[in-house]
Amino acid sequence: MTKQDELKQLVGQEAVKFIEDGMIVGLGTGSTVKFMVDALGKRVADEQLSIVGVPTSQRTKEQAAGLGIPTKGLDEVDHIDLTIDGADQIDKNFQGIKGGGAAHLWEKIVAINSTKNMWIVDKSKMVDQLGSFPLPLEVIPYGSQQLFKRLEKQGFNPVFRMKNNNYVTTDSNNYLIDLHLHKIDNPKELALTLDQMTGIVEHGLFLNIVNTVIVGEDDGPKVLQAR
Amino acid sequence: MTKQDELKQLVGQEAVKFIEDGMIVGLGTGSTVKFMVDALGKRVADEQLSIVGVPTSQRTKEQAAGLGIPTKGLDEVDHIDLTIDGADQIDKNFQGIKGGGAAHLWEKIVAINSTKNMWIVDKSKMVDQLGSFPLPLEVIPYGSQQLFKRLEKQGFNPVFRMKNNNYVTTDSNNYLIDLHLHKIDNPKELALTLDQMTGIVEHGLFLNIVNTVIVGEDDGPKVLQAR
Repeated sequence: MTKQDELKQLVGQEAVKFIEDGMIVGLGTGSTVKFMVDALGKRVADEQLSIVGVPTSQRTKEQAAGLGIPTKGLDEVDHIDLTIDGADQIDKNFQGIKGGGAAHLWEKIVAINSTKNMWIVDKSKMVDQLGSFPLPLEVIPYGSQQLFKRLEKQGFNPVFRMKNNNYVTTDSNNYLIDLHLHKIDNPKELALTLDQMTGIVEHGLFLNIVNTVIVGEDDGPKVLQAR
Repeated sequence: MTKQDELKQLVGQEAVKFIEDGMIVGLGTGSTVKFMVDALGKRVADEQLSIVGVPTSQRTKEQAAGLGIPTKGLDEVDHIDLTIDGADQIDKNFQGIKGGGAAHLWEKIVAINSTKNMWIVDKSKMVDQLGSFPLPLEVIPYGSQQLFKRLEKQGFNPVFRMKNNNYVTTDSNNYLIDLHLHKIDNPKELALTLDQMTGIVEHGLFLNIVNTVIVGEDDGPKVLQAR
């Protein structure tokens, strides 16, 4: 295992300490989350922990099933106690960008239905200001070329996310446009602008959502309380 | 033909007088629009009018094709000169509700990409205040039960649109929730609230969009300039 993977594993192990017996737990997606789900599977097996996982992707659902973690869909539970997910960038005010994995719509839907949210990341994701990571938008395919031109005119440097010359599609069968903004001076104002644009299903700004961040520092996991 | 259909036909014939040779014309959907497309087909045949139609539904596309009106998709044109569509309700400030036909997302995408918009309606659609017609929301199926509960808590009286015990789905494969609000005191404020709710793809409030309204009054079509 590489040094980086070792750190991710330690972060995952630290994260599952916050999970208590009886909880309904949102399970995110990503490389650090994968280690967290492994650690959760171990707790479920070792301690007969009774929890229900709500996965945000097919991949995490299959991993959980393989580890004997019972899962339910978001619409089958009446609440989520804690969601543990990754993030692509987190600023000093604990505002985040997600969507590099093309799943920010479902991840945001799970997040806003969770009493508490925790993000687990390596230290490269921690920045002073958001924006060097391109901001993902999930967009309706119909009229998306017109939307693209509109975003261009606004100076948002849009780029359709492509793979092998095809549009990348989300679990909701929409396209992705990444905004290469370099820096985001006012995340709240930008979010409001994007919220009001017809054709954008959801942007990757996750504002005032996370409660706890666990960062994989060189000397081990560091727990930060955001709000 | 019933008296009501005669009035709709007169409105449709009045509407196509606004279409000029060379225009790219957005073609809406609905019973009055159907008469308008018929009248447009007649002008294309009689006057060799050279126009391109951009239909907002499969139904209108097929009708146009049958009448020899050339059509293109929204992403194949660089602009739309005029869109002619119906509306479910129009208030005295020319703000509207659309979506009773489950197509308000695509209709709004076409509308915001049109230089001018015209709505053609029968007089029953003209009201002092919006809201007696339920406000349609197009919503992401994933997490829609949680969204529904959230809307209930806000007092928005949500009802999933069903047909034969199944969820009605849109052309983008989303669900519809109708808000039975009875009256909408501040359409702009409500739009902003709904714009910011994750899981709502688009609401049916069409604000500051229409330029011209043609109403089928008992004594014939009446043209109203909105803005």
